[in-house]
Amino acid sequence: MKKTLGIIGGVGPLATMFLGEMIVRLTKASKDQEHVHTIIDNDTCIPDRTNYILGRSDENPVPVIIRDAQKLANYGADVICIPCNTAHSFYEEIQKGSPVPVLHMIRETAKRARNFEARKVAILATDGTISSKVYQQALLEEGITPVVPDERTQKLVMSVIYDYVKAGKEVTNELWTEIEEAVLNLHCDRIILGCTELSVVNKNLHLGECYIDSLIVLAETAILQCGYELNKTLQ
Amino acid sequence: MKKTLGIIGGVGPLATMFLGEMIVRLTKASKDQEHVHTIIDNDTCIPDRTNYILGRSDENPVPVIIRDAQKLANYGADVICIPCNTAHSFYEEIQKGSPVPVLHMIRETAKRARNFEARKVAILATDGTISSKVYQQALLEEGITPVVPDERTQKLVMSVIYDYVKAGKEVTNELWTEIEEAVLNLHCDRIILGCTELSVVNKNLHLGECYIDSLIVLAETAILQCGYELNKTLQ
Repeated sequence: MKKTLGIIGGVGPLATMFLGEMIVRLTKASKDQEHVHTIIDNDTCIPDRTNYILGRSDENPVPVIIRDAQKLANYGADVICIPCNTAHSFYEEIQKGSPVPVLHMIRETAKRARNFEARKVAILATDGTISSKVYQQALLEEGITPVVPDERTQKLVMSVIYDYVKAGKEVTNELWTEIEEAVLNLHCDRIILGCTELSVVNKNLHLGECYIDSLIVLAETAILQCGYELNKTLQ
Repeated sequence: MKKTLGIIGGVGPLATMFLGEMIVRLTKASKDQEHVHTIIDNDTCIPDRTNYILGRSDENPVPVIIRDAQKLANYGADVICIPCNTAHSFYEEIQKGSPVPVLHMIRETAKRARNFEARKVAILATDGTISSKVYQQALLEEGITPVVPDERTQKLVMSVIYDYVKAGKEVTNELWTEIEEAVLNLHCDRIILGCTELSVVNKNLHLGECYIDSLIVLAETAILQCGYELNKTLQ
Protein backbone atom coordinates (compact mmCIF):
# COMPACT_ATOMS: atom_id res chain seq x y z
CA MET A 1 0.00 0.00 0.00
CA LYS A 2 1.46 3.34 -1.07
CA LYS A 3 1.43 6.17 1.48
CA THR A 4 1.12 9.93 1.01
CA LEU A 5 3.99 11.98 2.44
CA GLY A 6 3.49 15.30 4.24
CA ILE A 7 6.44 17.68 4.49
CA ILE A 8 6.47 20.46 7.08
CA GLY A 9 8.73 22.82 5.20
CA GLY A 10 9.85 26.41 5.22
CA VAL A 11 12.62 25.47 7.65
CA GLY A 12 14.39 26.57 5.49
CA PRO A 13 12.53 27.10 2.22
CA LEU A 14 15.38 26.20 -0.16
CA ALA A 15 16.19 22.99 1.72
CA THR A 16 12.49 22.08 1.54
CA MET A 17 12.48 22.29 -2.25
CA PHE A 18 15.76 20.39 -2.38
CA LEU A 19 14.20 17.59 -0.28
CA GLY A 20 11.24 17.52 -2.69
CA GLU A 21 13.63 17.33 -5.65
CA MET A 22 15.69 14.53 -4.07
CA ILE A 23 12.53 12.51 -3.36
CA VAL A 24 11.59 12.80 -7.05
CA ARG A 25 15.13 12.06 -8.29
CA LEU A 26 15.66 9.03 -6.01
CA THR A 27 12.28 7.32 -6.58
CA LYS A 28 12.22 4.43 -9.05
CA ALA A 29 9.62 5.74 -11.51
CA SER A 30 9.22 5.95 -15.26
CA LYS A 31 6.24 8.36 -15.40
CA ASP A 32 4.51 11.07 -13.31
CA GLN A 33 1.99 8.67 -11.84
CA GLU A 34 4.69 6.41 -10.31
CA HIS A 35 6.11 9.12 -8.02
CA VAL A 36 5.44 9.66 -4.31
CA HIS A 37 2.30 11.72 -3.67
CA THR A 38 3.77 14.51 -1.53
CA ILE A 39 2.08 17.46 0.17
CA ILE A 40 4.48 20.23 1.14
CA ASP A 41 3.55 23.05 3.47
CA ASN A 42 6.43 25.47 2.91
CA ASP A 43 5.34 27.28 6.05
CA THR A 44 7.52 30.35 6.34
CA CYS A 45 5.60 31.41 9.48
CA ILE A 46 7.41 28.85 11.68
CA PRO A 47 9.54 30.83 14.17
CA ASP A 48 13.33 30.31 14.21
CA ARG A 49 14.16 27.12 16.11
CA THR A 50 17.68 28.01 17.25
CA ASN A 51 16.62 31.42 18.61
CA TYR A 52 13.95 29.71 20.74
CA ILE A 53 16.23 26.94 22.04
CA LEU A 54 18.92 29.44 23.03
CA GLY A 55 16.35 31.68 24.79
CA ARG A 56 16.85 34.57 22.36
CA SER A 57 13.15 34.55 21.44
CA ASP A 58 9.85 33.70 23.15
CA GLU A 59 8.27 32.51 19.90
CA ASN A 60 7.82 28.77 20.32
CA PRO A 61 7.91 26.97 16.94
CA VAL A 62 6.39 23.73 18.34
CA PRO A 63 2.66 24.68 18.33
CA VAL A 64 3.01 25.89 14.72
CA ILE A 65 4.74 22.66 13.67
CA ILE A 66 2.07 20.54 15.42
CA ARG A 67 -0.72 22.57 13.77
CA ASP A 68 0.95 21.95 10.37
CA ALA A 69 1.21 18.21 11.11
CA GLN A 70 -2.52 18.16 11.90
CA LYS A 71 -3.38 20.13 8.74
CA LEU A 72 -1.23 17.85 6.57
CA ALA A 73 -2.79 14.73 8.12
CA ASN A 74 -6.28 16.19 7.43
CA TYR A 75 -5.19 16.82 3.84
CA GLY A 76 -4.30 13.17 3.46
CA ALA A 77 -0.70 12.70 4.63
CA ASP A 78 -0.02 9.26 6.17
CA VAL A 79 3.57 10.03 7.23
CA ILE A 80 5.20 13.38 8.09
CA CYS A 81 8.76 14.55 7.75
CA ILE A 82 10.41 17.83 8.75
CA PRO A 83 13.48 18.95 6.76
CA CYS A 84 14.96 20.81 9.76
CA ASN A 85 17.41 19.08 12.07
CA THR A 86 17.01 21.72 14.79
CA ALA A 87 13.23 21.09 14.95
CA HIS A 88 14.04 17.51 16.00
CA SER A 89 15.11 18.90 19.39
CA PHE A 90 11.32 18.96 20.01
CA TYR A 91 10.65 15.58 18.34
CA GLU A 92 8.83 13.86 21.24
CA GLU A 93 6.43 16.80 21.66
CA ILE A 94 5.80 17.02 17.89
CA GLN A 95 5.17 13.27 17.55
CA LYS A 96 2.78 13.40 20.49
CA GLY A 97 0.78 16.17 18.80
CA SER A 98 0.81 14.64 15.31
CA PRO A 99 -2.02 12.29 14.29
CA VAL A 100 0.40 10.36 12.00
CA PRO A 101 3.99 9.07 12.39
CA VAL A 102 6.80 11.64 12.07
CA LEU A 103 10.11 10.40 10.63
CA HIS A 104 13.16 11.12 12.82
CA MET A 105 15.84 12.42 10.45
CA ILE A 106 18.51 12.57 13.16
CA ARG A 107 18.09 8.97 14.34
CA GLU A 108 18.01 7.82 10.70
CA THR A 109 21.25 9.73 10.03
CA ALA A 110 22.90 8.20 13.10
CA LYS A 111 21.84 4.72 11.91
CA ARG A 112 23.43 5.47 8.55
CA ALA A 113 26.70 6.40 10.32
CA ARG A 114 26.62 3.02 12.07
CA ASN A 115 26.05 1.27 8.71
CA PHE A 116 29.25 2.96 7.52
CA GLU A 117 30.96 1.44 10.60
CA ALA A 118 31.98 4.93 11.76
CA ARG A 119 33.36 5.14 15.31
CA LYS A 120 33.84 8.87 15.75
CA VAL A 121 31.59 11.28 13.92
CA ALA A 122 31.65 15.10 13.75
CA ILE A 123 28.40 17.04 13.79
CA LEU A 124 27.96 20.22 11.74
CA ALA A 125 24.72 21.87 12.80
CA THR A 126 23.17 25.04 14.23
CA ASP A 127 23.97 26.21 17.76
CA GLY A 128 20.42 25.13 18.64
CA THR A 129 20.89 21.54 17.44
CA ILE A 130 24.34 21.25 19.07
CA SER A 131 23.16 22.63 22.41
CA SER A 132 20.05 20.39 22.45
CA LYS A 133 22.44 17.38 22.15
CA VAL A 134 19.91 15.49 20.00
CA TYR A 135 22.63 14.35 17.54
CA GLN A 136 25.10 13.48 20.30
CA GLN A 137 22.47 11.28 21.97
CA ALA A 138 21.41 9.58 18.70
CA LEU A 139 25.06 8.78 17.87
CA LEU A 140 25.80 7.46 21.38
CA GLU A 141 22.75 5.16 21.07
CA GLU A 142 24.38 3.71 17.94
CA GLY A 143 27.68 3.20 19.81
CA ILE A 144 29.39 6.12 18.04
CA THR A 145 31.46 8.86 19.69
CA PRO A 146 30.13 12.32 18.73
CA VAL A 147 32.44 15.32 18.33
CA VAL A 148 31.57 18.97 17.74
CA PRO A 149 33.65 21.81 16.24
CA ASP A 150 35.56 24.32 18.36
CA GLU A 151 33.89 27.68 19.04
CA ARG A 152 35.52 29.52 16.12
CA THR A 153 34.55 26.83 13.58
CA GLN A 154 31.02 26.63 15.00
CA LYS A 155 30.70 30.39 14.38
CA LEU A 156 31.74 29.84 10.75
CA VAL A 157 29.13 27.06 10.39
CA MET A 158 26.43 29.38 11.79
CA SER A 159 27.51 32.10 9.37
CA VAL A 160 27.28 29.68 6.41
CA ILE A 161 23.74 28.71 7.50
CA TYR A 162 22.31 32.16 8.34
CA ASP A 163 24.41 34.76 6.46
CA TYR A 164 24.79 32.71 3.29
CA VAL A 165 22.25 29.95 2.55
CA LYS A 166 19.18 31.36 4.35
CA ALA A 167 20.03 34.80 2.91
CA GLY A 168 20.28 33.40 -0.64
CA LYS A 169 24.07 33.83 -1.01
CA GLU A 170 26.41 31.22 -2.53
CA VAL A 171 29.03 29.62 -0.27
CA THR A 172 32.53 29.54 -1.80
CA ASN A 173 34.90 26.59 -1.82
CA GLU A 174 37.42 28.65 0.19
CA LEU A 175 34.95 29.32 3.02
CA TRP A 176 33.97 25.65 3.20
CA THR A 177 37.59 24.45 3.12
CA GLU A 178 38.29 26.48 6.26
CA ILE A 179 35.48 24.62 8.06
CA GLU A 180 36.46 21.23 6.64
CA GLU A 181 40.11 21.52 7.66
CA ALA A 182 39.19 22.44 11.22
CA VAL A 183 36.76 19.50 11.42
CA LEU A 184 39.22 16.97 9.98
CA ASN A 185 41.57 17.95 12.83
CA LEU A 186 39.04 16.33 15.18
CA HIS A 187 40.16 12.94 13.71
CA CYS A 188 36.64 11.71 12.95
CA ASP A 189 35.66 8.96 10.46
CA ARG A 190 32.68 10.83 9.06
CA ILE A 191 31.12 14.32 9.16
CA ILE A 192 27.35 14.69 9.49
CA LEU A 193 25.76 17.60 7.62
CA GLY A 194 23.18 18.05 10.36
CA CYS A 195 21.47 21.17 9.08
CA THR A 196 19.45 21.22 5.87
CA GLU A 197 21.13 24.48 4.80
CA LEU A 198 24.42 22.55 4.79
CA SER A 199 22.76 20.03 2.45
CA VAL A 200 22.18 22.95 0.07
CA VAL A 201 25.95 23.67 0.30
CA ASN A 202 26.66 19.98 -0.44
CA LYS A 203 24.38 20.15 -3.48
CA ASN A 204 26.29 23.12 -4.86
CA LEU A 205 29.86 22.21 -3.87
CA HIS A 206 29.64 18.39 -4.20
CA LEU A 207 31.39 17.70 -0.90
CA GLY A 208 33.31 14.42 -0.56
CA GLU A 209 32.41 10.91 0.58
CA CYS A 210 33.33 11.52 4.22
CA TYR A 211 30.08 13.49 4.66
CA ILE A 212 26.70 12.03 5.64
CA ASP A 213 23.98 14.33 4.36
CA SER A 214 20.97 14.25 6.70
CA LEU A 215 18.62 15.61 4.01
CA ILE A 216 19.53 12.85 1.56
CA VAL A 217 19.07 10.30 4.34
CA LEU A 218 15.61 11.81 5.02
CA ALA A 219 14.67 11.67 1.30
CA GLU A 220 15.69 8.01 1.05
CA THR A 221 13.91 7.10 4.30
CA ALA A 222 10.72 8.90 3.19
CA ILE A 223 10.60 7.09 -0.18
CA LEU A 224 10.98 3.67 1.46
CA GLN A 225 8.52 4.46 4.29
CA CYS A 226 5.89 5.46 1.70
CA GLY A 227 6.21 2.06 0.01
CA TYR A 228 8.24 3.11 -3.04
CA GLU A 229 11.62 1.86 -4.27
CA LEU A 230 14.87 3.78 -4.63
CA ASN A 231 16.41 3.98 -8.09
CA LYS A 232 19.81 4.52 -6.50
CA THR A 233 21.34 5.18 -3.08
CA LEU A 234 23.32 8.37 -2.55
CA GLN A 235 24.15 7.76 1.13
CA MET B 1 -1.20 42.01 2.37
CA LYS B 2 0.82 38.85 1.68
CA LYS B 3 -0.97 35.94 0.05
CA THR B 4 -0.44 32.18 0.41
CA LEU B 5 0.29 30.33 -2.84
CA GLY B 6 -1.13 26.91 -3.68
CA ILE B 7 0.64 24.79 -6.29
CA ILE B 8 -1.17 21.91 -7.99
CA GLY B 9 1.90 19.85 -8.78
CA GLY B 10 2.87 16.38 -9.85
CA VAL B 11 2.48 17.47 -13.46
CA GLY B 12 5.34 16.61 -13.65
CA PRO B 13 6.91 16.07 -10.22
CA LEU B 14 10.42 17.32 -11.04
CA ALA B 15 9.11 20.51 -12.66
CA THR B 16 6.97 21.10 -9.55
CA MET B 17 10.04 21.06 -7.29
CA PHE B 18 11.89 23.25 -9.75
CA LEU B 19 9.04 25.80 -9.62
CA GLY B 20 9.20 25.72 -5.83
CA GLU B 21 12.97 26.25 -5.95
CA MET B 22 12.68 29.15 -8.42
CA ILE B 23 10.05 30.85 -6.22
CA VAL B 24 12.47 30.64 -3.28
CA ARG B 25 15.50 31.76 -5.32
CA LEU B 26 13.71 34.71 -6.97
CA THR B 27 12.01 36.13 -3.85
CA LYS B 28 13.70 39.12 -2.20
CA ALA B 29 14.24 37.68 1.29
CA SER B 30 17.02 37.60 3.85
CA LYS B 31 15.57 34.94 6.20
CA ASP B 32 13.14 32.00 6.20
CA GLN B 33 10.23 34.09 7.46
CA GLU B 34 10.40 36.51 4.48
CA HIS B 35 9.67 33.85 1.86
CA VAL B 36 6.35 33.08 0.15
CA HIS B 37 4.17 30.71 2.17
CA THR B 38 3.56 27.99 -0.40
CA ILE B 39 1.47 24.82 -0.20
CA ILE B 40 2.38 22.23 -2.82
CA ASP B 41 0.21 19.24 -3.61
CA ASN B 42 2.58 17.11 -5.67
CA ASP B 43 -0.41 15.06 -6.77
CA THR B 44 0.94 12.20 -8.83
CA CYS B 45 -2.61 10.82 -9.23
CA ILE B 46 -3.53 13.45 -11.87
CA PRO B 47 -4.08 11.56 -15.16
CA ASP B 48 -1.92 12.42 -18.20
CA ARG B 49 -3.24 15.59 -19.85
CA THR B 50 -1.98 14.96 -23.39
CA ASN B 51 -3.40 11.42 -23.51
CA TYR B 52 -6.84 12.78 -22.56
CA ILE B 53 -6.78 15.70 -25.04
CA LEU B 54 -5.75 13.40 -27.89
CA GLY B 55 -8.48 10.88 -27.01
CA ARG B 56 -5.98 8.15 -26.08
CA SER B 57 -7.42 7.87 -22.58
CA ASP B 58 -10.84 8.33 -20.91
CA GLU B 59 -9.26 9.52 -17.66
CA ASN B 60 -10.21 13.18 -17.36
CA PRO B 61 -7.62 15.13 -15.34
CA VAL B 62 -9.93 18.16 -14.82
CA PRO B 63 -12.05 16.86 -11.88
CA VAL B 64 -8.85 15.84 -10.04
CA ILE B 65 -7.27 19.27 -10.64
CA ILE B 66 -10.45 21.06 -9.46
CA ARG B 67 -10.60 18.86 -6.33
CA ASP B 68 -6.95 19.77 -5.61
CA ALA B 69 -7.72 23.49 -6.08
CA GLN B 70 -10.57 23.17 -3.57
CA LYS B 71 -8.38 21.27 -1.09
CA LEU B 72 -5.56 23.83 -1.40
CA ALA B 73 -8.01 26.72 -0.92
CA ASN B 74 -9.40 24.98 2.20
CA TYR B 75 -5.83 24.62 3.46
CA GLY B 76 -5.33 28.36 3.11
CA ALA B 77 -4.16 29.10 -0.43
CA ASP B 78 -5.30 32.52 -1.75
CA VAL B 79 -3.95 32.02 -5.29
CA ILE B 80 -3.38 28.80 -7.24
CA CYS B 81 -0.87 27.97 -9.95
CA ILE B 82 -0.40 24.81 -12.00
CA PRO B 83 3.10 24.08 -13.33
CA CYS B 84 1.76 22.23 -16.39
CA ASN B 85 1.20 24.07 -19.65
CA THR B 86 -0.96 21.28 -21.08
CA ALA B 87 -3.38 21.56 -18.12
CA HIS B 88 -4.08 25.15 -19.24
CA SER B 89 -6.04 23.72 -22.17
CA PHE B 90 -8.77 23.29 -19.54
CA TYR B 91 -8.14 26.66 -17.84
CA GLU B 92 -11.71 28.06 -18.04
CA GLU B 93 -13.18 24.89 -16.52
CA ILE B 94 -10.53 24.78 -13.75
CA GLN B 95 -10.97 28.48 -12.87
CA LYS B 96 -14.75 27.99 -12.74
CA GLY B 97 -14.32 25.11 -10.25
CA SER B 98 -11.65 26.82 -8.12
CA PRO B 99 -12.70 28.96 -5.13
CA VAL B 100 -9.61 31.19 -5.61
CA PRO B 101 -7.91 32.76 -8.67
CA VAL B 102 -5.76 30.49 -10.84
CA LEU B 103 -2.75 32.10 -12.56
CA HIS B 104 -2.63 31.56 -16.33
CA MET B 105 0.97 30.62 -17.12
CA ILE B 106 0.40 30.57 -20.87
CA ARG B 107 -1.12 34.07 -21.08
CA GLU B 108 1.64 35.39 -18.79
CA THR B 109 4.27 33.81 -21.06
CA ALA B 110 2.65 35.33 -24.16
CA LYS B 111 2.67 38.76 -22.43
CA ARG B 112 6.38 38.32 -21.73
CA ALA B 113 6.96 37.61 -25.45
CA ARG B 114 5.21 40.91 -26.27
CA ASN B 115 7.41 42.73 -23.73
CA PHE B 116 10.41 41.40 -25.66
CA GLU B 117 8.81 42.92 -28.81
CA ALA B 118 8.79 39.51 -30.46
CA ARG B 119 6.81 39.24 -33.70
CA LYS B 120 7.07 35.57 -34.54
CA VAL B 121 7.42 33.04 -31.74
CA ALA B 122 7.94 29.25 -31.87
CA ILE B 123 6.16 27.01 -29.37
CA LEU B 124 7.83 23.92 -27.95
CA ALA B 125 5.21 21.93 -26.06
CA THR B 126 3.43 18.59 -25.84
CA ASP B 127 1.19 17.32 -28.63
CA GLY B 128 -1.72 18.03 -26.27
CA THR B 129 -0.80 21.70 -25.77
CA ILE B 130 -0.09 22.22 -29.46
CA SER B 131 -3.34 20.60 -30.61
CA SER B 132 -5.41 22.55 -28.03
CA LYS B 133 -4.04 25.76 -29.62
CA VAL B 134 -3.98 27.51 -26.21
CA TYR B 135 -0.50 28.99 -26.87
CA GLN B 136 -1.32 29.97 -30.45
CA GLN B 137 -4.42 31.84 -29.26
CA ALA B 138 -2.59 33.59 -26.38
CA LEU B 139 0.17 34.75 -28.75
CA LEU B 140 -2.33 35.97 -31.38
CA GLU B 141 -4.08 37.98 -28.65
CA GLU B 142 -0.74 39.74 -28.03
CA GLY B 143 -0.33 40.44 -31.77
CA ILE B 144 2.37 37.78 -32.21
CA THR B 145 2.50 35.16 -34.96
CA PRO B 146 2.81 31.65 -33.49
CA VAL B 147 4.76 28.90 -35.24
CA VAL B 148 5.04 25.23 -34.38
CA PRO B 149 7.75 22.66 -35.26
CA ASP B 150 7.40 20.23 -38.19
CA GLU B 151 6.15 16.71 -37.42
CA ARG B 152 9.62 15.17 -37.08
CA THR B 153 10.86 17.85 -34.64
CA GLN B 154 7.61 17.66 -32.64
CA LYS B 155 8.25 13.92 -32.20
CA LEU B 156 11.72 14.72 -30.84
CA VAL B 157 10.21 17.27 -28.41
CA MET B 158 7.71 14.66 -27.18
CA SER B 159 10.54 12.15 -26.75
CA VAL B 160 12.54 14.67 -24.66
CA ILE B 161 9.48 15.25 -22.45
CA TYR B 162 8.29 11.68 -21.96
CA ASP B 163 11.26 9.35 -22.65
CA TYR B 164 13.84 11.57 -20.96
CA VAL B 165 12.66 14.11 -18.34
CA LYS B 166 9.53 12.35 -17.04
CA ALA B 167 11.50 9.06 -17.02
CA GLY B 168 14.35 10.64 -15.04
CA LYS B 169 16.96 10.55 -17.87
CA GLU B 170 19.31 13.43 -18.70
CA VAL B 171 18.90 15.18 -22.08
CA THR B 172 22.19 15.61 -23.97
CA ASN B 173 23.36 18.78 -25.71
CA GLU B 174 23.42 16.88 -29.03
CA LEU B 175 19.76 15.86 -28.78
CA TRP B 176 18.71 19.42 -27.91
CA THR B 177 20.81 20.96 -30.70
CA GLU B 178 18.89 18.85 -33.23
CA ILE B 179 15.61 20.38 -31.98
CA GLU B 180 17.04 23.90 -31.75
CA GLU B 181 18.42 23.90 -35.30
CA ALA B 182 15.09 22.74 -36.74
CA VAL B 183 13.23 25.45 -34.78
CA LEU B 184 15.62 28.25 -35.76
CA ASN B 185 14.82 27.35 -39.40
CA LEU B 186 11.30 28.64 -38.69
CA HIS B 187 12.81 32.18 -38.54
CA CYS B 188 11.24 33.11 -35.21
CA ASP B 189 12.39 35.86 -32.80
CA ARG B 190 11.93 33.80 -29.67
CA ILE B 191 11.24 30.19 -28.65
CA ILE B 192 8.78 29.44 -25.86
CA LEU B 193 9.59 26.50 -23.60
CA GLY B 194 5.90 25.70 -23.20
CA CYS B 195 6.19 22.50 -21.22
CA THR B 196 7.57 22.39 -17.68
CA GLU B 197 9.72 19.35 -18.53
CA LEU B 198 11.50 21.58 -21.07
CA SER B 199 12.16 24.04 -18.22
CA VAL B 200 13.99 21.19 -16.49
CA VAL B 201 16.10 20.81 -19.67
CA ASN B 202 16.78 24.57 -19.61
CA LYS B 203 17.87 24.32 -15.98
CA ASN B 204 20.39 21.60 -16.83
CA LEU B 205 21.64 22.79 -20.23
CA HIS B 206 21.42 26.58 -19.69
CA LEU B 207 19.74 27.30 -23.01
CA GLY B 208 20.31 30.71 -24.61
CA GLU B 209 18.55 34.06 -24.40
CA CYS B 210 16.24 33.38 -27.34
CA TYR B 211 14.15 31.12 -25.09
CA ILE B 212 11.22 32.21 -22.91
CA ASP B 213 10.84 29.73 -20.08
CA SER B 214 7.18 29.45 -19.06
CA LEU B 215 8.05 27.99 -15.64
CA ILE B 216 10.32 30.92 -14.78
CA VAL B 217 7.57 33.30 -15.94
CA LEU B 218 5.13 31.46 -13.66
CA ALA B 219 7.54 31.67 -10.69
CA GLU B 220 7.99 35.43 -11.18
CA THR B 221 4.26 36.01 -11.65
CA ALA B 222 3.42 33.99 -8.54
CA ILE B 223 5.88 35.92 -6.33
CA LEU B 224 4.48 39.28 -7.45
CA GLN B 225 0.84 38.15 -7.21
CA CYS B 226 1.43 37.03 -3.62
CA GLY B 227 2.64 40.51 -2.70
CA TYR B 228 6.40 39.81 -2.56
CA GLU B 229 9.28 41.42 -4.47
CA LEU B 230 11.67 39.79 -6.94
CA ASN B 231 15.37 39.89 -6.10
CA LYS B 232 16.19 39.58 -9.82
CA THR B 233 14.40 38.91 -13.09
CA LEU B 234 15.43 35.92 -15.14
CA GLN B 235 12.90 36.39 -17.95
